[in-house]
Amino acid sequence: MSEAFDAVDVIIAKRGKGELTDGQIDWVIDAYTRGAVADEQMSSLAMAILLNGMTRREISRWTGAMIASGERMDFSGLSRPTADKHSTGGVGDKITLPLAPLVAACGVAVPQLSGRGLGHTGGTLDKLESIPGWQAAMSNEAMMRQLEDVGAVICAAGDGLAPADKKLYALRDVTGTVEAIPLIASSIMSKKIAEGTGALVLDVKVGSGAFMKNVDDARELARTMVDLGTDAGVKTVAMLTNMQVPLGLTAGNAIEVRESVEVLAGGGPEDVVELTLALAREMLSAAGREDVDPADALRDGRAMDAWKAMIRAQGGDPDATLPVAKESQDVLAPADGVLTELDALKVGVAAWRLGAGRARKEDPVQAGAGVEMHYKPGATVRAGEKLLTLHTDTPDRFERALESLEGAFTIAPEGSRPDLLPLVIEKIS
Amino acid sequence: MSEAFDAVDVIIAKRGKGELTDGQIDWVIDAYTRGAVADEQMSSLAMAILLNGMTRREISRWTGAMIASGERMDFSGLSRPTADKHSTGGVGDKITLPLAPLVAACGVAVPQLSGRGLGHTGGTLDKLESIPGWQAAMSNEAMMRQLEDVGAVICAAGDGLAPADKKLYALRDVTGTVEAIPLIASSIMSKKIAEGTGALVLDVKVGSGAFMKNVDDARELARTMVDLGTDAGVKTVAMLTNMQVPLGLTAGNAIEVRESVEVLAGGGPEDVVELTLALAREMLSAAGREDVDPADALRDGRAMDAWKAMIRAQGGDPDATLPVAKESQDVLAPADGVLTELDALKVGVAAWRLGAGRARKEDPVQAGAGVEMHYKPGATVRAGEKLLTLHTDTPDRFERALESLEGAFTIAPEGSRPDLLPLVIEKIS
Repeated sequence: MSEAFDAVDVIIAKRGKGELTDGQIDWVIDAYTRGAVADEQMSSLAMAILLNGMTRREISRWTGAMIASGERMDFSGLSRPTADKHSTGGVGDKITLPLAPLVAACGVAVPQLSGRGLGHTGGTLDKLESIPGWQAAMSNEAMMRQLEDVGAVICAAGDGLAPADKKLYALRDVTGTVEAIPLIASSIMSKKIAEGTGALVLDVKVGSGAFMKNVDDARELARTMVDLGTDAGVKTVAMLTNMQVPLGLTAGNAIEVRESVEVLAGGGPEDVVELTLALAREMLSAAGREDVDPADALRDGRAMDAWKAMIRAQGGDPDATLPVAKESQDVLAPADGVLTELDALKVGVAAWRLGAGRARKEDPVQAGAGVEMHYKPGATVRAGEKLLTLHTDTPDRFERALESLEGAFTIAPEGSRPDLLPLVIEKIS
Repeated sequence: MSEAFDAVDVIIAKRGKGELTDGQIDWVIDAYTRGAVADEQMSSLAMAILLNGMTRREISRWTGAMIASGERMDFSGLSRPTADKHSTGGVGDKITLPLAPLVAACGVAVPQLSGRGLGHTGGTLDKLESIPGWQAAMSNEAMMRQLEDVGAVICAAGDGLAPADKKLYALRDVTGTVEAIPLIASSIMSKKIAEGTGALVLDVKVGSGAFMKNVDDARELARTMVDLGTDAGVKTVAMLTNMQVPLGLTAGNAIEVRESVEVLAGGGPEDVVELTLALAREMLSAAGREDVDPADALRDGRAMDAWKAMIRAQGGDPDATLPVAKESQDVLAPADGVLTELDALKVGVAAWRLGAGRARKEDPVQAGAGVEMHYKPGATVRAGEKLLTLHTDTPDRFERALESLEGAFTIAPEGSRPDLLPLVIEKIS
């Protein structure tokens, strides 16, 4: 850094709805990473950004400065193009599991750096860790080799990628500054751009189980991230998708792996299959392979082969029996009628409380815990039929899980129809 | 505290323009003082308060919680009523020095807990410390005794008064959250209410040399503080006064003491005399002594007697020669005409840079440094006449002081008149 700035001047500029200069942004991110800007200064700046916003130029520079705080990966030496997907997080969102091997089976490499779950949204690594032997940690060299050999990797991001984001994310979590679109967008995109993918498809969830509760906010976040990717030379598209209802019929860890394997075997819930194929088509198209139909690779078993190879390459046994929770309890339909609502947030909180998720970063998760759904909105049910089955190793958790399910579903008179957004709401590119 | 809250919930409430509950405010101030709410959480909350404001009820509760964080003083055992004054800070503002003994000479006790200067505004304690032997530190018992015997004390506030404010003020200083009217008002008033004065006159400065640059902001701050005092049972009035131009003809430490003594001797600059008498009348009236005319006490030497007794009681020699700076340099009038502007901020920064003020709390100040003014706006001057004299012990400081004086004064053609606010702009009670 050739120029030094004063943290208070930068804060006061944003506080007064001013636009930060490139020099100010580069300095504040670098100085924060080094500890020269204190946590209490960054948190008041984050609140000013949350309340007063940032221009496209500012967000782009901020993202660039976060990328520059760490290492960048480079997949340009691979023999095939790369494409990645990022979901803003939802309930029952296991799509990465069938999607990565499916896209790999179609000739495009997928370098998925994933995270763990916090709160009611699950984490891809937590789900895969329910497979006996499977390891999330991986060196850059091993990742490169697996991408060349298998075509797909789902692993933990190393500490070297965007360390400024790591520090800022932890700060935002405790200072009420998580929900700022410039900060959410730059956090996601700094990691994805530093990761070095050639193309990126963003799955921006909308609804009770998602971060963005309405379509307008989701559209603004999607637009901001697509702009950031495009500015950084990554071919980026975003899909706004429904998170009013959980995806598929499971929310947990091992039970979501089981459902993902069903999809790879040519079965599985309709919505999971539909979204997996829609996102695969976008990834292939963004990577220049719009000629390939991923439905073929699902049908003829190539996607399943890629899945098994991917799990084996990371020490897992794809044919091992998955863990099952020790205890279960059913929730029955209270009346005859049509299931018109099944709230994603409430189901997600129930799965979390049953042990599938964690309250703090250092907590363990239960592999077998979660919520199994027997019907999705639109189905006709009879009083006394099983609607949900709750799974946990620790039955004292049933009570709080059941509490979180109060008002989670609605059974309306026969002939009623659910009033829901479509699964894929719109595409932004 | 019977109830526990979550810091992030409190921050998110204020971030969303919500009103904080009494319980939330009590908890957050107490938890912050104890260290259970972290600095980075308080700073994002302070930024949310700055940008989203607080209701009268919230500010009142916030002030009460800060008072409750420490001890309260009690002067009800004194044989006379008490009245205090607080100035929001300006350039050349030595009014406390003649005012405290003047009001004491009229039968009302003045318990002035003062501070030191930071930046371009001077500190009352720094000024008094230029008197050989004078001590700012004092026990509560000694203060009580001096109030009974002499009637006036100007001393440093102890650590036990509003410790939450002390911690919060230091945090605001480095996080760009100083300029929030709810936080300024609660900071000033928590200390003044905890100090236990019966009546309070607030001198809210307006203009370039003040914190509040315009009358509207100053009026809002004044109104907020008067409400807080009134709610706490302290008879409180506020005067909005001019700080476009420095007060009197000196800005520094010893040179301001000298000017104050001139006022007590019946002379001194007209504006200092006028403001001292105006504030004295308000203090006397607020303490129930509207029958007394302070001009008499100034004229007949009783105020000077009280001054000498007050200085002696704190170890000082009121007849000692005051320190004089080693070096001086004049600034001459560049043309014939009428002096129409003399910018308070620029003069204040020059005095600061000459050594009268400090950049950091732990810096020393020079007793003799400062700026002497030979004319005030409205005066007719001739080219080559001395306008200002700069004083310092360290002549390498002249250059930066002169830089800060660029554009500090305007000489307009003869017949011109300055366009200035009146000295006393308005009264709020």
